[in-house]
Amino acid sequence: MVRERRHSRRGRPSPTRQVEAITQPLHQIPVYELLDASALDKIHQVSMEILSEVGILFMDDPESLAILREHGVRVEGELAFFTPTQIEHYVTMAPSEFTQLARNPARSLVIGGKHMCFAPVYGPPFVADRERGRRLGTLQDFRDFVKLAYLSPYIHHSGGVIVEPTDLPTPTRHLDMLYSHIKYSDKPFMGSVMSAGNAADSVKMVEIMFGSEAIRQQPALISLINISSPRRLDDRMLSALKVYARARQAVIITPFILSGAMGPAAIAGTLAQQNAEALAGIAFAQMIEPGTPVVYGSFQTNVDLQSGSPVFGSPESQLALYVSAQLARRYHLPFRSGGMFASAKIPDVQAGYESIMTMLPAVLARVNFVLHAAGWLDGGLTAGFEKFVLDCEVLGAFHTLLRGIDMSENGFAMESIRSVPPGGHHLGTPHTLRNFRTAFYRSELFDYQPSEAWEADGAHDAYERAHERLQQLLASYEAPPLDPALDTELQAFVSRRKAEISG
Amino acid sequence: MVRERRHSRRGRPSPTRQVEAITQPLHQIPVYELLDASALDKIHQVSMEILSEVGILFMDDPESLAILREHGVRVEGELAFFTPTQIEHYVTMAPSEFTQLARNPARSLVIGGKHMCFAPVYGPPFVADRERGRRLGTLQDFRDFVKLAYLSPYIHHSGGVIVEPTDLPTPTRHLDMLYSHIKYSDKPFMGSVMSAGNAADSVKMVEIMFGSEAIRQQPALISLINISSPRRLDDRMLSALKVYARARQAVIITPFILSGAMGPAAIAGTLAQQNAEALAGIAFAQMIEPGTPVVYGSFQTNVDLQSGSPVFGSPESQLALYVSAQLARRYHLPFRSGGMFASAKIPDVQAGYESIMTMLPAVLARVNFVLHAAGWLDGGLTAGFEKFVLDCEVLGAFHTLLRGIDMSENGFAMESIRSVPPGGHHLGTPHTLRNFRTAFYRSELFDYQPSEAWEADGAHDAYERAHERLQQLLASYEAPPLDPALDTELQAFVSRRKAEISG
Repeated sequence: MVRERRHSRRGRPSPTRQVEAITQPLHQIPVYELLDASALDKIHQVSMEILSEVGILFMDDPESLAILREHGVRVEGELAFFTPTQIEHYVTMAPSEFTQLARNPARSLVIGGKHMCFAPVYGPPFVADRERGRRLGTLQDFRDFVKLAYLSPYIHHSGGVIVEPTDLPTPTRHLDMLYSHIKYSDKPFMGSVMSAGNAADSVKMVEIMFGSEAIRQQPALISLINISSPRRLDDRMLSALKVYARARQAVIITPFILSGAMGPAAIAGTLAQQNAEALAGIAFAQMIEPGTPVVYGSFQTNVDLQSGSPVFGSPESQLALYVSAQLARRYHLPFRSGGMFASAKIPDVQAGYESIMTMLPAVLARVNFVLHAAGWLDGGLTAGFEKFVLDCEVLGAFHTLLRGIDMSENGFAMESIRSVPPGGHHLGTPHTLRNFRTAFYRSELFDYQPSEAWEADGAHDAYERAHERLQQLLASYEAPPLDPALDTELQAFVSRRKAEISG
Repeated sequence: MVRERRHSRRGRPSPTRQVEAITQPLHQIPVYELLDASALDKIHQVSMEILSEVGILFMDDPESLAILREHGVRVEGELAFFTPTQIEHYVTMAPSEFTQLARNPARSLVIGGKHMCFAPVYGPPFVADRERGRRLGTLQDFRDFVKLAYLSPYIHHSGGVIVEPTDLPTPTRHLDMLYSHIKYSDKPFMGSVMSAGNAADSVKMVEIMFGSEAIRQQPALISLINISSPRRLDDRMLSALKVYARARQAVIITPFILSGAMGPAAIAGTLAQQNAEALAGIAFAQMIEPGTPVVYGSFQTNVDLQSGSPVFGSPESQLALYVSAQLARRYHLPFRSGGMFASAKIPDVQAGYESIMTMLPAVLARVNFVLHAAGWLDGGLTAGFEKFVLDCEVLGAFHTLLRGIDMSENGFAMESIRSVPPGGHHLGTPHTLRNFRTAFYRSELFDYQPSEAWEADGAHDAYERAHERLQQLLASYEAPPLDPALDTELQAFVSRRKAEISG
């Protein structure tokens, strides 16, 4: 990637503006409630029917089945059947909100309640930028995304597998990813879920950072436990879940459902299935360690029934998102969903439409933890560099939206309304001058020029402008300070574990 | 424009699918209410203060001032001061919903209540397409947009000045636009507001179509009366308003406010000002003709205070839109706002983000009449052909969203949930096969292919695909039948009026 710094003719401020601290946004507007209480209860009741009569498979993991049996759950073969009473008993043990520690205490995050938190895309094997196109991700790409997430005031969390560093050996790459999150950012991050060993390594590294007692009081990791829908938790995810729950590290229990494939071609049924799956995983986590922080997760959209491809930003997925958030609130659990989803392969107009079609509902539904809030392209298979930068601009707008309307005397500006004559303008009033910097959210990347000026400036579309901005950002990056002794200890751990795993 | 029909390698269905009738959508989901009753009341109270103490200017139109005085309004110079009682008395006379006639009765529209209606962009002097770029609009462009609006099942209204036909003489071009709406579409359309004479011509043409008595029972025109904010109605708009009100044709009274310029740099104050202006216009229309159909309009966003340029899709404009809708409902009036607004000059990712940032709130706020629902670019200065086609695809998705979640037995699909084993899939279940065509909204223009297939297919972005689709649509267009006697009469009227005006 070209790293030279280019000065914009449009005179934009330096990208270092971005390191300013923006605090985690509080949701100060009403939550959008799609279903009334009785309809929501019907979803709940059908999910109880699924849990008690249809069952959830705990696959290839005898220890998990033993834990379930010990806690009174009826198990037939590998199928577990939960009663409504059992679900209620264990789900109630989970905290309704918790704080995830960051190595910079000012960046620790509250997960739950009215707090929102935006995290980068998670999981793509590919990266793409405008200059080099789509290619397999590398550690360098991973680090660049960590840096971009660190630089944006509108991304609160460093995320997890922002992109797979496919140039590294699979068995040890989690160590490089974890170390990169710690080294190149001071925001909270996610643990590895590829195996019990990876999860244990993740826990060990935050123990080195914070101490083993501190992380039992407040988790330093949040990790993504996907349910292999329909109705199945596999041994890999169960193994990681057990490690994290025993260490009291937060887990996001997320059924992964494309309606029409891993769930029925119907939204109410999908929601009932999702709810059964999420509650089974959450109850199981509480059986392992009562009080362990958990997040109710939803990753849902539908397939295009003609091709089988997932469709992002669909109207059906918006409807499901609102109800999923209502269900999580019903159980007093923090909620994860949403993201700047796009099926589009590049940041074109389709990507723009699609991204807001999920992200704005996520904001109105009060999703507490928005994974994939920046950088998602290509149905999640590609982490887009320019898309990341563009999405961050929109996340800034959502911070403003979440504050709602200022109903103070200053918000009414009656002095201005009285003083400006009919047909006059407010551009130079004392009120406008006083509120000049704070009145409205301003994107530095979006174009608001007259057409003639835009053309004279090269007629660059937003994708091109984001590419320029991307280069400026990476060139401006400076790592947050990291205690050298801690750095040495972490590096020693990573080296030792790499030797053990490869040896 | 190239009109040859190109057959897609992707085997898309013929564009003639588009002529299928989709009925006007009913808003079957909850309305998003941003402010609570007491905050909403505060906006109302401040607007009453503006109406009674600060006043609204009725400019250069002595007859309007006389009408106000006759109805007890205090007038000082050209400033009118309304009491809350006067406002309530006259605003209450307006119907809460009404039907606008279309020459095809199946396409008549209900304006108000839970009904929504999407109309094309209005007013740009320029058009743009991917092949020819931006240029001044012509009558041919105007007709092409009328045809596109006719072809889309998701556009319910033919609109008004979709683009200015700048190749025609200004004094008579309204006649060509009106005739084009009638000839090339059978959907309802808007009247001209450039002068009293233009408005009278508009009324005469619908009298020819429907008869003068019928249009007094149900309006055949809806016309856009913009208030020249702050606090000013000018003689041009007042003249047109009087003609339409006397003919009982519907008018949309719309303050046009860019906060920071025509209103304060504050949203609560902007809303109070807007409310005062809209209610003054609505009350005035009722003084002229009690019961004349009116729509409470809002066109609001903010300027970028650094450059003075309007910013579309801003978070502040979303907040204002929700509250404007609440105010209209408070007065039991149909509401107009929203649109697929973009500052972007072409349909790039910025245009996509921006469009949904206003249009999705417009849907959740239950805007009854969404002008600018397709084709808007460049802050409203350009009607984009591809943007129009792309926006229509998204409007289709909103039709699905508005239906909400199917909570029937079929919506829960328990037979499928019970029958598919853990980790299995629903692609071939009887439930999926039964619901194959109707389960999910499907865009034919958006790309959901795997990346490799998309690349093999030429790696076309959505803008390119929309250009191809545009050509197919225009090539497939067939005019709806028009009674030859009526056509002759309309043409004779247009010819006579052109001769009178030019003579």
